[in-house]
Amino acid sequence: MTSSPSEIPSDAPKTRKVQQRTIDGKSRIITAGAKEFIANGYWGTSANDIIAGAESNKNFFYTHFPKGKQDVAREISFNSTWDGLKSQPLMVQEMVDIGMILSHRVRTEARILAALRLSFEPGATEEYGTPWPQWVEFNITQIETAIERGEIRPHVNPGEQARQLPGLWSGLILTAGVLDGSYERVEEYVATGYKNLMKAIGSPGVLPDIDFSVNRGEVLYTTWLNEQEKALQDSPTE
Amino acid sequence: MTSSPSEIPSDAPKTRKVQQRTIDGKSRIITAGAKEFIANGYWGTSANDIIAGAESNKNFFYTHFPKGKQDVAREISFNSTWDGLKSQPLMVQEMVDIGMILSHRVRTEARILAALRLSFEPGATEEYGTPWPQWVEFNITQIETAIERGEIRPHVNPGEQARQLPGLWSGLILTAGVLDGSYERVEEYVATGYKNLMKAIGSPGVLPDIDFSVNRGEVLYTTWLNEQEKALQDSPTE
Repeated sequence: MTSSPSEIPSDAPKTRKVQQRTIDGKSRIITAGAKEFIANGYWGTSANDIIAGAESNKNFFYTHFPKGKQDVAREISFNSTWDGLKSQPLMVQEMVDIGMILSHRVRTEARILAALRLSFEPGATEEYGTPWPQWVEFNITQIETAIERGEIRPHVNPGEQARQLPGLWSGLILTAGVLDGSYERVEEYVATGYKNLMKAIGSPGVLPDIDFSVNRGEVLYTTWLNEQEKALQDSPTE
Repeated sequence: MTSSPSEIPSDAPKTRKVQQRTIDGKSRIITAGAKEFIANGYWGTSANDIIAGAESNKNFFYTHFPKGKQDVAREISFNSTWDGLKSQPLMVQEMVDIGMILSHRVRTEARILAALRLSFEPGATEEYGTPWPQWVEFNITQIETAIERGEIRPHVNPGEQARQLPGLWSGLILTAGVLDGSYERVEEYVATGYKNLMKAIGSPGVLPDIDFSVNRGEVLYTTWLNEQEKALQDSPTE
């Protein structure tokens, strides 16, 4: 098997241990950075806050994040991606799934909530960049495919509707944070939002086959995590 | 006529002038505060930044905003309300109208964009409060009325859908700011979002009668402003 993560070469146990410590140390910094950014915003957070939160030190921090908090924010902003998304018989299901997976992760991981909040900070684009353009491109492709397959109505304009997905996803999560003081129910709100959107643009015959279950994101993501772990255990270690 | 604004008594021309100067001075501070909050966030803005931006002075500033930037943020957060909204034959039209008016104002007034951004700052609720709960209550009442009148489908849950309006409105505006680097096209995006929502929850017979024009907010708000101005001119001044 060749599925062991590329960061950990299996030929040198000692190097492997050092590298694992580096990965863990970086991961602690990213998590600490995410929590600081959520609590105090990007501009209200200092490199020292992150170093203290991660119980790290300046030497390690600046070795791995030479531009300080800017590098931490960049890593948080671009590390969410499509983990947990599985190919589905219906493309419209995949459109719903990615929103539900990321809603689940907003509820359970500081990093994803931090990525969302960071993307709307003043000067975000110039300071550490934003993944929103990539998301809109991805959504356009999904909608075009769904139209070709007859899952979305033919008159729908992909460019026009592609913005609606990140728009409603972000807004529902941010308003939940204010209205509820927590993110416990975001999957419910996002499921309702996506159901509305699919009723508006989806082909009527396809709608009953889309799964909008509130726990859909959790099930898909947990399954994926378990598969990753299993692949790691099955890989040769010596 | 008794329609002259209550802040300006018409019986004392000298007092009137002083009070008008106070109103103008406060207004300059609020606009300057809004611009600073948009550019640097609440936590990145100081009272001195606002005073400098407004070309005001500490004495005037703290006389009218004793808690400094916190009072400015509170005033910005709670001053948007329903200006420009007119009673319409269809309640679903009023639901669309308020979103379109506020989208128009996001594009043209720093205060409304600042109010939106302030509402999602870390600690907003504790620091200066947020109008979102009032908005959701308002939306619930609108949806209930629309269901009673047969404009929204009977199975729709008002509490569930009421969050979708502020959710999609905020998210579409914030993502536009990042994706376009401007708010020039927010009315277009919000019109599409509201059209989708109404297709999902509105009674099919009512849909063709709803006006989703991109300039609807502008027309309503400009008409309202002109009416206000005319009322002021028509009021006795001596």
